[in-house]
Amino acid sequence: MKLIVKPMDHLITGYVACIDPADALVLGVKENDRIRVTGPKGEMAVVVVVADRAVNPGELLVSIPLMKRVGASEGCEVCVAYSPNPDSVRSIRRKMDGQKLDSIEIVNIVNDIYQGNLSTIETSAWLTALYINGMDLDEIAVFANALVDTGDRVEFGRSPVFDFHSMGGVPGNKITPIVVSICAAAGLMVPKTSSRAISSACGTSDFVELFCPVEVTLDRLREIGETVGGAFVWGGSMNIAPVDDMVIKIEHPLGINPRAQMLASILGKKLAIGADFLLIDIPTGGGTKVPTIEAAKEYSRDFMALGEKLGIHIECAITYADQPVGHAIGPALEARECLRVLEGDDHPASVIEKACECAGMLLEMGGIPDGARRAREILRTGEARKKFLEIVVAQGGSADIKSSDMPVGKHTVDIISKRSGYVNRVVNSDLVAVAKALGAPSDKGAGIEVIKKRGHRVEVGDVLFRLYADNDAKLARAKDMAEKLMPVVIEGMILSRVTE
Amino acid sequence: MKLIVKPMDHLITGYVACIDPADALVLGVKENDRIRVTGPKGEMAVVVVVADRAVNPGELLVSIPLMKRVGASEGCEVCVAYSPNPDSVRSIRRKMDGQKLDSIEIVNIVNDIYQGNLSTIETSAWLTALYINGMDLDEIAVFANALVDTGDRVEFGRSPVFDFHSMGGVPGNKITPIVVSICAAAGLMVPKTSSRAISSACGTSDFVELFCPVEVTLDRLREIGETVGGAFVWGGSMNIAPVDDMVIKIEHPLGINPRAQMLASILGKKLAIGADFLLIDIPTGGGTKVPTIEAAKEYSRDFMALGEKLGIHIECAITYADQPVGHAIGPALEARECLRVLEGDDHPASVIEKACECAGMLLEMGGIPDGARRAREILRTGEARKKFLEIVVAQGGSADIKSSDMPVGKHTVDIISKRSGYVNRVVNSDLVAVAKALGAPSDKGAGIEVIKKRGHRVEVGDVLFRLYADNDAKLARAKDMAEKLMPVVIEGMILSRVTE
Repeated sequence: MKLIVKPMDHLITGYVACIDPADALVLGVKENDRIRVTGPKGEMAVVVVVADRAVNPGELLVSIPLMKRVGASEGCEVCVAYSPNPDSVRSIRRKMDGQKLDSIEIVNIVNDIYQGNLSTIETSAWLTALYINGMDLDEIAVFANALVDTGDRVEFGRSPVFDFHSMGGVPGNKITPIVVSICAAAGLMVPKTSSRAISSACGTSDFVELFCPVEVTLDRLREIGETVGGAFVWGGSMNIAPVDDMVIKIEHPLGINPRAQMLASILGKKLAIGADFLLIDIPTGGGTKVPTIEAAKEYSRDFMALGEKLGIHIECAITYADQPVGHAIGPALEARECLRVLEGDDHPASVIEKACECAGMLLEMGGIPDGARRAREILRTGEARKKFLEIVVAQGGSADIKSSDMPVGKHTVDIISKRSGYVNRVVNSDLVAVAKALGAPSDKGAGIEVIKKRGHRVEVGDVLFRLYADNDAKLARAKDMAEKLMPVVIEGMILSRVTE
Repeated sequence: MKLIVKPMDHLITGYVACIDPADALVLGVKENDRIRVTGPKGEMAVVVVVADRAVNPGELLVSIPLMKRVGASEGCEVCVAYSPNPDSVRSIRRKMDGQKLDSIEIVNIVNDIYQGNLSTIETSAWLTALYINGMDLDEIAVFANALVDTGDRVEFGRSPVFDFHSMGGVPGNKITPIVVSICAAAGLMVPKTSSRAISSACGTSDFVELFCPVEVTLDRLREIGETVGGAFVWGGSMNIAPVDDMVIKIEHPLGINPRAQMLASILGKKLAIGADFLLIDIPTGGGTKVPTIEAAKEYSRDFMALGEKLGIHIECAITYADQPVGHAIGPALEARECLRVLEGDDHPASVIEKACECAGMLLEMGGIPDGARRAREILRTGEARKKFLEIVVAQGGSADIKSSDMPVGKHTVDIISKRSGYVNRVVNSDLVAVAKALGAPSDKGAGIEVIKKRGHRVEVGDVLFRLYADNDAKLARAKDMAEKLMPVVIEGMILSRVTE
């Protein structure tokens, strides 16, 4: 049937069309069915909203993106017909039924998400089915390639390409710029793309942007990689595996990250930059994505098997994550701690050790023997700092950057121990919640300095951790929260007395 | 933070709020997180849209229903804060993880769907998890009660209350008015609520509304039940288990109907009218929801066990569904066939037999011996027709209604056999697709008369089935489809020759 186009509020950013119930009856469609809209310049099948009063009979209320797609302006006549669901919907149902999907099905689903052909309902069902029923390694390899194919790739004029990825989940993990700088100083090319925090208090890009801009084009990343040998840019600014960013909007409110989606997404992004050698850091411990060594070994096996299928040499580092890495949590605090290590500070040991061990593994993958020792040497001699500053300048930052410049929050308060004993536990998730209440990662100065860590002796009145904020209201709110949660847990040597 | 209310397009019928990215950063929320909006007259937590340009910093773009809920008008200042997800989201994740939910969790989910507290993303994930991981009978019993509690109930001044439900899936199943009329004529009270077609060509209410209005209030249903003893009204016009109608909008595009949702929804609706005795018709055969006798027996066992938990005496009839019941598919055609049987026509045998056997089981549940024989007698003597007309008049129809008045489509075409042999198969799903292409159920005259059914002898040139439509364009389109699909399959006695 022919309908007259009326534009929707520009708030609606997807492809949506809305018709009157009388027209829906004639077309034989119900809410959430699809209609094919054919305009002067194209056609598209979209999910339909059937709404009384929002639209008059004979009219089609159309979102601006859909108007553009079919080339129809206000008042234009378009042809509207019932449209069957895309094949992907059947494939999603097959995944719900626990079936293995073939390559065409997986590619179709990825393309349909990318092109906006699947509704929110369908994408949510897909991610839920993927979370529950999973994928085998063959499916995941196809999935990773499909994710790359929807976005841009970069081909470096140098090879091999080294890369490093942390699965995350441990607060204070500020090692990426150190690892990249050490390896690049040793002659490897490590063009690292990072992400911002999704549910954490500070992603790598959230603190690296205090050193230099992190938004660069893919072409510029290629230039920096080829000339300087290293980079630490924000992957979100480039069109790499864009479907991943689209599904995060659905995964985040559900609090799920399907294993298959995570593996395919990590490896898809590495395929996009043409990685030949990849080290994966698997933080393992209570409250992270990977709670036990057994689970971490299973991830390692999967990553390495997938690497073989995808032509990437992958090694994994299972790392300690029962408490934060270093002392600082939050953008400016982490940036300062990271810079201090590059400037030659021999503290905190956990940051230096993790960074040098990881860099060492990459150096050995690149044929440099005794990697960890060599990494410590590069750090100690200032070569790493020199390379770090070269990268900062290449990304558009200043060569004068110093740890003392980092804008840590002016408003601080200390959380004091009310008992003596030993730090028995440090609860990562509670620290992250407090850091977010302080304003991290959007308030750059907000965060926590954890002063007493596991095993430390504590006396009554000692400072356990210090809160930093950019404003007093957030500081007060977070202080209450910190005292209620008490993420640093003190016990005496006798955990409980049994007297009867 | 304080924001100024700006109203959204009235197209947005749910509870939605939209903020500028800068404000989202300050609040620490991402797209699809929740914010709590507090206005002069109330507060509500809603899923937030973060949109550039749609809204200015300092403003909150709010859907009309949300403005009403918090009592805020345009330009009004409201208080906005981050809000954690409702507990239901954690329960949905527990169901994804295959856990059994407790009563409080199930009640919370149902209430949150009812009150619009769950987003489309979350509801889709819930239904997908329910489809994959299911519920045990204890959970389903709680679920059924929770569904009733969100809606209205009716309490009849007479008891016991008898009810009848068909699981559907077989085309041409026009027996409900006959069963109700027979049982009511025998003195039982059968206040039947039916539905419209969801994916079929004709639901019970779709053809019954050619006899009389089907939209009545719950109070009027009570009066009709008490005085006339029977009714056949549209359940959708009453506020019975309304959550079920809300989730159908999500289930339908996914093409799923989770077993737990289906069982709870059927029994919830029966609890709402206070059913004491319930007969469930389980159409069993290829292409229906229940493909095998074994699956049908499993449904029977589940229904009967749930009946015990819920205080309803349930019996089940596993019925033949490999081809349509009777000959007619589509509103006016089914209405005509149904009326002809009530008027004393001894054809089609399958309609008469199924109606009388089902009515007989109900009569026996009501203490009337030799039910099927008694049912046939009530039909034969015209008592059923008399009671049928009483019900029609009580619902606001005319006492003069006759089968010859039914508005079957004026445009018809016959589909002719090109070979001789026997009807080997009749494909229900293809017949339904053709009937829908003809315009059913919204075009009342549209449908199919199946002339040759399974086992019938067919000669070249015989009419296999006849298409009816209210307009020529749909008739032509459906004819092409029918000839391509050929839902009535003819074979010789020799199905294939093996000569080598």
